[in-house]
Amino acid sequence: MSGWIAVAGLGPGAEDLVTPAVSAALAEATDVVGYIPYVARVAAREGLTLHPSDNRVELDRARHALEMAAAGKRVVVVSSGDPGVFAMASALFEALEVAPEFAQTDIRILPGITAMLAAAAHAGAPLGHDFCAINLSDNLKPFEMVEHRLRHAARGDFAMAFYNPRSKSRPHQFERVLEVLREECEPERLILFARAVSTPEERIVTVSLAEATPEMADMRTVVIVGNSATQRVGKWVYTPRSAGGR
Amino acid sequence: MSGWIAVAGLGPGAEDLVTPAVSAALAEATDVVGYIPYVARVAAREGLTLHPSDNRVELDRARHALEMAAAGKRVVVVSSGDPGVFAMASALFEALEVAPEFAQTDIRILPGITAMLAAAAHAGAPLGHDFCAINLSDNLKPFEMVEHRLRHAARGDFAMAFYNPRSKSRPHQFERVLEVLREECEPERLILFARAVSTPEERIVTVSLAEATPEMADMRTVVIVGNSATQRVGKWVYTPRSAGGR
Repeated sequence: MSGWIAVAGLGPGAEDLVTPAVSAALAEATDVVGYIPYVARVAAREGLTLHPSDNRVELDRARHALEMAAAGKRVVVVSSGDPGVFAMASALFEALEVAPEFAQTDIRILPGITAMLAAAAHAGAPLGHDFCAINLSDNLKPFEMVEHRLRHAARGDFAMAFYNPRSKSRPHQFERVLEVLREECEPERLILFARAVSTPEERIVTVSLAEATPEMADMRTVVIVGNSATQRVGKWVYTPRSAGGR
Repeated sequence: MSGWIAVAGLGPGAEDLVTPAVSAALAEATDVVGYIPYVARVAAREGLTLHPSDNRVELDRARHALEMAAAGKRVVVVSSGDPGVFAMASALFEALEVAPEFAQTDIRILPGITAMLAAAAHAGAPLGHDFCAINLSDNLKPFEMVEHRLRHAARGDFAMAFYNPRSKSRPHQFERVLEVLREECEPERLILFARAVSTPEERIVTVSLAEATPEMADMRTVVIVGNSATQRVGKWVYTPRSAGGR
């Protein structure tokens, strides 16, 4: 039997946001690899080997998946959210780039509900107009690039979604992000902190940029900044479809 | 029985990309409203009334949904992709804004797999780093705003996904989009034209910006422009997770 790899997005947390395509791949898999908390979301069963691994070992994990597929295994690489958004799909192709002996591997990328879109849905429709997604972590890029992109996103009046806004190892950077936003945007700009979306611990807080504090975000939070037209209606936050006088 | 509205994303086309949450809402619905081709994706059954409507009547449709929910109906408003990305969620809140008598309506937004993420998955991982989503239609915003956002997205070195790139009524604008991109980006920049993703007619073509022509896009196409580091490996296109020397 020939092996394959499916890089699958498990969505933000709720079972009913996992696509049937991902469930089908998991049902056929012999091996599941991924970051510990994501592998923990896959039910154990006979014939399935779980390979949880630590954070920041994405390339090793991708290489391991390629080796197993070459040995005939049916491997699902799990990401939370969507595997193509700051997750394992790029890591797999990076591993493939430096290991041409695996060029013929049967690979599929299975999309998932990414955190910003689940957060947006539960808050209303804050990303209902043009928007950007920015990973605030500087593990893999200099923080100056984050700042550069923030300013362009603000000057283009994009709504913005921030992944990995804050960690214990870099508590000051999100403070700097808020400073940059305050330089570029009006104080009334709406900003949403959406934590653990679609899980029992979900909490979504909406404040003005003037009221936002760094402690409102942690690594389980997706932050959404509205554009200049984003507004509230009742408990909802949404961005109108029209802009610039239309 | 009290009525409700679920604004649901049907995903890009394939049945196995419809989330269980959306399927459950459709199973409980008494009424489905939406643009004709999206309502056509919902199976008819006893007790379910389908209300297909034309394009560009989003506010009328949203108002109709609010009225039916107030009358006790269980209404699913269907969008393709994700309802919060250039789709019906914002339209519903716009309708709610001008009709405070419906303020107490039970509303849920159910996310879906949006076209750019399905296209990215089938192409590889071109949105694996920071990216923007831009609606190129000027129905609801002046084209100058599109151009302004394009330049900021390019100068921020974001990857970009374009929705509604081209229609019969405005064939020249996508030509102008390509011109702007050529002013801002190098000729080798990769650009993907992903048509009818996840349907039997799916076709994904990747070319350099120098080779791109306006006819490569139509209204069923999502266009993805890589960032300056986006590359090919075999048949795949991906954007590395690292940038700026990390």
